[in-house]
Amino acid sequence: MTETTENKDLVQEQQDVQADTTAENVEQAEVQEETAELSIEEQYEAKLAELQAKLEDEENRHLRLRADFDNMRRRQQLDREAAEKYRAQSLLSDLLPVLDNFERALQVETTSEEAASIIKGIDMVYRSLIEATEKEGLQVIKAEGEPFDPNVHQAVMQEQDSEKETGIVLRELQKGYLLKDRVLRPTMVSVNE
Amino acid sequence: MTETTENKDLVQEQQDVQADTTAENVEQAEVQEETAELSIEEQYEAKLAELQAKLEDEENRHLRLRADFDNMRRRQQLDREAAEKYRAQSLLSDLLPVLDNFERALQVETTSEEAASIIKGIDMVYRSLIEATEKEGLQVIKAEGEPFDPNVHQAVMQEQDSEKETGIVLRELQKGYLLKDRVLRPTMVSVNE
Repeated sequence: MTETTENKDLVQEQQDVQADTTAENVEQAEVQEETAELSIEEQYEAKLAELQAKLEDEENRHLRLRADFDNMRRRQQLDREAAEKYRAQSLLSDLLPVLDNFERALQVETTSEEAASIIKGIDMVYRSLIEATEKEGLQVIKAEGEPFDPNVHQAVMQEQDSEKETGIVLRELQKGYLLKDRVLRPTMVSVNE
Repeated sequence: MTETTENKDLVQEQQDVQADTTAENVEQAEVQEETAELSIEEQYEAKLAELQAKLEDEENRHLRLRADFDNMRRRQQLDREAAEKYRAQSLLSDLLPVLDNFERALQVETTSEEAASIIKGIDMVYRSLIEATEKEGLQVIKAEGEPFDPNVHQAVMQEQDSEKETGIVLRELQKGYLLKDRVLRPTMVSVNE
């Protein structure tokens, strides 16, 4: 139930109260009009019936509110779980291009001892970054050698490799990522014709 | 109000209902006992009073539930806002040591053109990482030259610099970070005696 339907319930409830009050006035007017013709018992029975009806209305109103309350609590619990589950989504999405650039920077060919040593140090930083993102639920989508899956792969080209099956991912052109069960970015792939 | 107090309210409500029912039984018993002695008017008045009391109880019960409902909705809104505001806290906390190591790796002295070029490329990656964390609300705490503030600084040593004021942060030994208005990690500092 959305906030809007809740508001509708509130409005409905207020209308119920107004309707009750109107019904009450009408009944009172009727009771007064007919007073002369009714016996005391009949008058009392009418009043009792009126009160009984109001009591039932009130009980129904309470049951409806109780149900709204329980629904709201359930919904709140689900909302909280979903927000918690995907809490890092925004930051992780922003980290994907950082990871891309990081990987590109580390793929440089080194010719000197010094450069190789720097790359080695930076590679450790990269691994610790990956570890932190994995802890929050980031996972690389498997691609190369897997059957093409439109849910997690985006085909950007077709190639031919007669030694491999049709519809198999031949190359990964850009890494794709899941956040737990949600696709943050599909893998860009080439598919075997 | 916590989940526990809510449950208490529910229990209270159930007890109210039971109390109402008991009161009703007692009243009915009394009504029956006194039937012989009471006029028809008095019997009806007693029944009316009984129903009126039940109706008032029911209305009060409804008001209490309505208040619980509104409290819960307000609380839910606040919970949602807080969860949203600090959603990246867990991942950002895990990224702090990554940032430390990253900065350490970039501070290496380079002697070759190749090494300098690698560092330059990696420095761009570092900047894009910082940018992504800033977007989620991560900020470096100001330290050097600031008056020591125990809310955001952790003094790990004292030093003497007669040219500077007492209680001023002389050096930053480890960077500290805020997530919006919350201290994720205080800055480790040396303070002027």
